[in-house]
Amino acid sequence: MSGFKIIALSGSLRKKSFNTAALRAAQEVAPQGVTIEIAELGDLPLYNDDIRENAYPESVMRLRRQIAEADAVLFATPEYNYAVAAPLKNAFDWCSRPPEQPLNNKAVAILSASMGPLGGVRAQYNLRHMFVSTNSFCVNTPQVVIGSAQTKFDENGKFTDQVGRDLLKQLIEALVALSRRLNPKA
Amino acid sequence: MSGFKIIALSGSLRKKSFNTAALRAAQEVAPQGVTIEIAELGDLPLYNDDIRENAYPESVMRLRRQIAEADAVLFATPEYNYAVAAPLKNAFDWCSRPPEQPLNNKAVAILSASMGPLGGVRAQYNLRHMFVSTNSFCVNTPQVVIGSAQTKFDENGKFTDQVGRDLLKQLIEALVALSRRLNPKA
Amino acid sequence: MSGFKIIALSGSLRKKSFNTAALRAAQEVAPQGVTIEIAELGDLPLYNDDIRENAYPESVMRLRRQIAEADAVLFATPEYNYAVAAPLKNAFDWCSRPPEQPLNNKAVAILSASMGPLGGVRAQYNLRHMFVSTNSFCVNTPQVVIGSAQTKFDENGKFTDQVGRDLLKQLIEALVALSRRLNPKA
Amino acid sequence: MSGFKIIALSGSLRKKSFNTAALRAAQEVAPQGVTIEIAELGDLPLYNDDIRENAYPESVMRLRRQIAEADAVLFATPEYNYAVAAPLKNAFDWCSRPPEQPLNNKAVAILSASMGPLGGVRAQYNLRHMFVSTNSFCVNTPQVVIGSAQTKFDENGKFTDQVGRDLLKQLIEALVALSRRLNPKA
Repeated sequence: MSGFKIIALSGSLRKKSFNTAALRAAQEVAPQGVTIEIAELGDLPLYNDDIRENAYPESVMRLRRQIAEADAVLFATPEYNYAVAAPLKNAFDWCSRPPEQPLNNKAVAILSASMGPLGGVRAQYNLRHMFVSTNSFCVNTPQVVIGSAQTKFDENGKFTDQVGRDLLKQLIEALVALSRRLNPKA
Repeated sequence: MSGFKIIALSGSLRKKSFNTAALRAAQEVAPQGVTIEIAELGDLPLYNDDIRENAYPESVMRLRRQIAEADAVLFATPEYNYAVAAPLKNAFDWCSRPPEQPLNNKAVAILSASMGPLGGVRAQYNLRHMFVSTNSFCVNTPQVVIGSAQTKFDENGKFTDQVGRDLLKQLIEALVALSRRLNPKA
Repeated sequence: MSGFKIIALSGSLRKKSFNTAALRAAQEVAPQGVTIEIAELGDLPLYNDDIRENAYPESVMRLRRQIAEADAVLFATPEYNYAVAAPLKNAFDWCSRPPEQPLNNKAVAILSASMGPLGGVRAQYNLRHMFVSTNSFCVNTPQVVIGSAQTKFDENGKFTDQVGRDLLKQLIEALVALSRRLNPKA
Repeated sequence: MSGFKIIALSGSLRKKSFNTAALRAAQEVAPQGVTIEIAELGDLPLYNDDIRENAYPESVMRLRRQIAEADAVLFATPEYNYAVAAPLKNAFDWCSRPPEQPLNNKAVAILSASMGPLGGVRAQYNLRHMFVSTNSFCVNTPQVVIGSAQTKFDENGKFTDQVGRDLLKQLIEALVALSRRLNPKA
């Protein structure tokens, strides 16, 4: 596989976020030729349609461009209130509006990490449904649901769980494969 | 009914928001003794756990206090990507964290408005599930789902649909009644 | 607490069902004065509106009567395809139709058990939303999500996990309490 | 397009079902070379794992074979209690179990019809999530949500709404196209 670009969005803005750390692990295990860039979501303003109708802010333009130019998108999200974290919803809302819609027809994948045993699975439920709205196609399997995250990352944020790392690798491979099935020329 | 205080949160930040306009209509139709205050959500920062662990920002403190002091909470939300709008998710995440949790054990109610025919019903689906996390109790009926909103508000943002206004009144009455059933002394 | 009647519905029809076994454990840990009867769902026909419009079958009448006469309802469900099991959906559909609607205004509670680590939490998500339709009020906390069920029940179907048994007891107490808050005279 | 076989499942068992009628309309508008067969779901027993572990009943075997042999699957469902109707959940549960899993890797599509204004959109929400479990890929657009169904079918069950018929045709075309993108050799 060569020249496959993934843009990755983490729903958590905190520095020691397990979800962002899992995206760094994804960079480590990605197959040769697959590059994963982690987007900055923290400088986006709160979604406001009045702002949008005037002009997209530069931070939003940047993110929309990154998604448009990527072959596929990888989402990482903690679960807040049984749903995706606000910063991820905010980025998603900004990136789903006209004129061009950068998530349209893209292959996407999800991982989630949380300190509880359920690993954010309800946030995944929420996010999957959002993809219908953007006409994105999400990898079904494997499901990467990292529960008890505090036991699976070391003090430097390295994802040390080998089973989890293998699943993560499979997830990226599945994302690349789905993207190529959907858009063979890409 | 006397001295019953409702704090209202609108998921839309735009000036001409149908959802915020519906909250103003709720103020108009509220039974005597019931006051509805509309909260400001636009000056909250994007949720970030690092900020929270240091200190809640003043705008967040204000909103948490408003919810804590209210007898009940009324949510209005547009539907973005089949889910609640980002500003509402953001406010919700900020208001659901320790130490005290202001939504705990509160009666809540939802309305939604959208320009499409489905009126935001999927956003309501999403929001209802978030209430489980905060141990809030949501009014089941009536359901106020305002579809084709552009035909039901005039140019000044007045909610002119009489059927809808009556439903809105019933919703507030149901919210007050549920709150009093749950917390008789309040 | 005296004379409080709970009817319990299990979504699994298999004899060695962990969910049905969990309901038997609920009978064991129920506070004095609280009786839990486990309903039979296996002899209901598949839901068919033509049958209903003619006459409810006797098995359905029996279940509707059991729910109507109970003070509260306890649901146990495995998770099939990230949703409630078909036998539970079937019973629910039969019991939610006119003329009288036996789940209306009732307090309800959920437990789920599964062999996987996630314990059926997505089935709970699905079921909670169904309660909006029947105007039932569901206990929010504690959440009884029994993962890795095969390690928590012995060969006779006894629920041996003490932490789980304590949670189950709390769930029943919360169900009784919610019912009494909602319907003080009952 | 030639030789493309779709098996269609209706969640409603009543004779005058709008959903089943919509599937008959789908047969009428299907592009040349696309055949749509409507499956019988009414003679399946209620899902019971004890039965399954012994042997699949013949009615279930028939349905599993029909799905396995089809190129794609079209689901029609009324909305009962904000979720798919019990007969559809029942068929789905029977068809998602080992050894071979006939929905695996298949393209699928949904339509829903109801007498209310919301047209069953919450049932679609529920069904889409079930597809994750079976590793099926669902068409995102167009969404065929037939509200106020009683005004759109005549006394013989003919779907008379031209906008709806056109959308239905687009849905089938989208289902064929998605199937061919996913499985080019098929």
